[in-house]
Amino acid sequence: MKAAILTVGTEILFGEITNTNTVYLSRRLNDIGIDVMYHYTVGDNPGRLAEIIETSLRDCDIVITTGGLGPTQDDMTKEIACQVMGDHLVMHDDILEFIRNRMLSYKTVMTENNVKQALLPSRCRVFYNDAGTAPGFALDRLRKGDNQSAERRQWIACLPGPPKEMTRMFERSVMPWLEELTEGCLVYREIRTFGIGESDLETKLLPVIDGQTDPTVATYAKNGECSVRVASKRNTREEAEKAVLGMIEKINGFVGEYIYSTEGEEYPFVVGNMLMSRGLTLSAAESCTGGMFGAALTDIAGISAVFDRSLVTYSNQAKMDELGVKPETLEEYGAVSEQTALEMAEGVRRKAGTDIGISVTGIAGPDGGTEEKHVGLVYIGLSCSDRCGGKTICRKIDRRLKDRQRNRRHAVLSMFDMIYRNV
Amino acid sequence: MKAAILTVGTEILFGEITNTNTVYLSRRLNDIGIDVMYHYTVGDNPGRLAEIIETSLRDCDIVITTGGLGPTQDDMTKEIACQVMGDHLVMHDDILEFIRNRMLSYKTVMTENNVKQALLPSRCRVFYNDAGTAPGFALDRLRKGDNQSAERRQWIACLPGPPKEMTRMFERSVMPWLEELTEGCLVYREIRTFGIGESDLETKLLPVIDGQTDPTVATYAKNGECSVRVASKRNTREEAEKAVLGMIEKINGFVGEYIYSTEGEEYPFVVGNMLMSRGLTLSAAESCTGGMFGAALTDIAGISAVFDRSLVTYSNQAKMDELGVKPETLEEYGAVSEQTALEMAEGVRRKAGTDIGISVTGIAGPDGGTEEKHVGLVYIGLSCSDRCGGKTICRKIDRRLKDRQRNRRHAVLSMFDMIYRNV
Repeated sequence: MKAAILTVGTEILFGEITNTNTVYLSRRLNDIGIDVMYHYTVGDNPGRLAEIIETSLRDCDIVITTGGLGPTQDDMTKEIACQVMGDHLVMHDDILEFIRNRMLSYKTVMTENNVKQALLPSRCRVFYNDAGTAPGFALDRLRKGDNQSAERRQWIACLPGPPKEMTRMFERSVMPWLEELTEGCLVYREIRTFGIGESDLETKLLPVIDGQTDPTVATYAKNGECSVRVASKRNTREEAEKAVLGMIEKINGFVGEYIYSTEGEEYPFVVGNMLMSRGLTLSAAESCTGGMFGAALTDIAGISAVFDRSLVTYSNQAKMDELGVKPETLEEYGAVSEQTALEMAEGVRRKAGTDIGISVTGIAGPDGGTEEKHVGLVYIGLSCSDRCGGKTICRKIDRRLKDRQRNRRHAVLSMFDMIYRNV
Repeated sequence: MKAAILTVGTEILFGEITNTNTVYLSRRLNDIGIDVMYHYTVGDNPGRLAEIIETSLRDCDIVITTGGLGPTQDDMTKEIACQVMGDHLVMHDDILEFIRNRMLSYKTVMTENNVKQALLPSRCRVFYNDAGTAPGFALDRLRKGDNQSAERRQWIACLPGPPKEMTRMFERSVMPWLEELTEGCLVYREIRTFGIGESDLETKLLPVIDGQTDPTVATYAKNGECSVRVASKRNTREEAEKAVLGMIEKINGFVGEYIYSTEGEEYPFVVGNMLMSRGLTLSAAESCTGGMFGAALTDIAGISAVFDRSLVTYSNQAKMDELGVKPETLEEYGAVSEQTALEMAEGVRRKAGTDIGISVTGIAGPDGGTEEKHVGLVYIGLSCSDRCGGKTICRKIDRRLKDRQRNRRHAVLSMFDMIYRNV
């Protein structure tokens, strides 16, 4: 079954609101095996709205709209849905009663506008609104066949725009209705990798990408990392899951050394959970990342069980004061060096009394590089107590990239990678 | 001039990525007086991509695409753009050279895929990519007139999908090109505020919002802050600038106490520059924010001149070790209290020997609240040397919001606000 998602509202076209409804609906439709083919956004204009609904139904079975169901003049989704699907609005007394009670509970007087909300297409399926006053609905039509195609049924489902009302209505009323309509079951998984570029990743995975129809395998890049998406659509959830798991095993064979999650989890979450499950405590010493490592780790609620402190020692003085880095080391090798990174990691681990000490020092850029030490040069230090290997090691990264943000983000991911691969 | 924005990428249809590119492009196009009529998203499928470009150009003058310019098999925007606009791909040697140098600076070997990126439409205007390897381009065609309409020129502009590459390319290369295409001169400014909600802000600004046609004034909310956008389109840049500045002065009269920038700058940047220009040094002590304050401040290149260290003391032990917070204070008042915040700020300032010490301690959530101390409770401490007021003060924030991310982000902004308003 093929679907289009249509957002109605001029404020979206102005860029005033990020369209989170579409993200939500896309995920939920894919979850139940409905292929989302298009997203559309159109303003509050009757002609364009009607035209785009027709465009959507050219090759989709269903179009789901959000927005334009409110009580004001520029809300016209109901009228246009009727026009396209061949129906007309009638007063639904049960809905009127529902809205009247809702207004009473709000202690608000019912206006002419509220009454208008009980006008719905005559042959629609109504979706009640538990979080607001505008009801949603679904409406179908029989589309005449032509030379190439047989007669077929098509649907429009109209939901309110406010995300809270839309999501609640979707879960309680639209989901059960859609499950009646569809066949087949889709399962998908996201594999996350670090340390390999997208072209490289695709080249290594070509044997399972080329000519593959189910499960499908696709790579994509996001924020300096690359992911692989594996999706399968079968008659039952069990079959689809089995196909996806089989493919993940194959992919593991090709690029396993770069994978850190086969469940789409982010690196801080993976490492945080590893530390929590093994009861290993951690402290950090940051320089060029300025606190980003600690910030990423403490995104995880409950991480205080294993995370003790991160000392952001931006100046040389702070590195000596806080971490006991030797003045001779800074003088002889510089703040951005293997020796300094190692002393930082050891220093913070000793001071905090944790199992693991992780450190980072580098030249984030865009300036500050030299002939010997380029912008993008980063050292990651790792110091482990006897409980987890008893080693102190360093990784050098030399990307020669002048982009401060990307260098910093890459350094943070490298710190998580360093822990994940070595502890 | 009418525009459509077309996002290309199956991952968007899967709902895996929130479409921020479209929000960004919508705002910027509206800023320069281009009417955005439609947003479209389509997957990596040649037939559907071609069809939707034609649909876009049915009643728009220009369609701007993002995505599908990468080096892998499912990237096909260039090919389809050629097909629709009537052109073909040729090797652009200058681009090939540019990509080769880029790969050298990354220390990466150039692959067949990278070479493919230098293939571009023969008569296109190239947009260089300063942040990645895939170049963008613009291409036009002359559309034959029919009974109702005269012959007219139409454009497609194809930009890369990664937001960082796209935005940079847009600002540096696409904007100047669009300004050549459109007539009149648009100037806009973004006023940034903190500490006031959007409806409040709008209410206070009603006198300058209502019935205003030029300059236009619009409020919008983003990441816990509210901005006001002022835009004017006149015959010359001077006229437009004068109109915008006059309006900013009026707005200052209504809500000046909440404004921290009339140039669209972010709070860390504003505070960082204030400190640098006044030569005031700063250290920080963070708890619930986990390093986010330091991370935000060190986004600014050159901030090492005034920023010394941030001690992320997540555990109580770390607060005592690193900042000298008294055990009695923690016992009597708790880690989340005015007393602890003040001792943290004083402690880090004394230890680092800086002019300013700023601290934060709070309950970010989603759990961990009590009857007396709700999730969302945050204390910000500020300690200043005699050079900048010689005071030690605290601000209490009690938002009763269970959202960890929003609480943390708000706490960081409050730290910058505390410094901006009191130093």
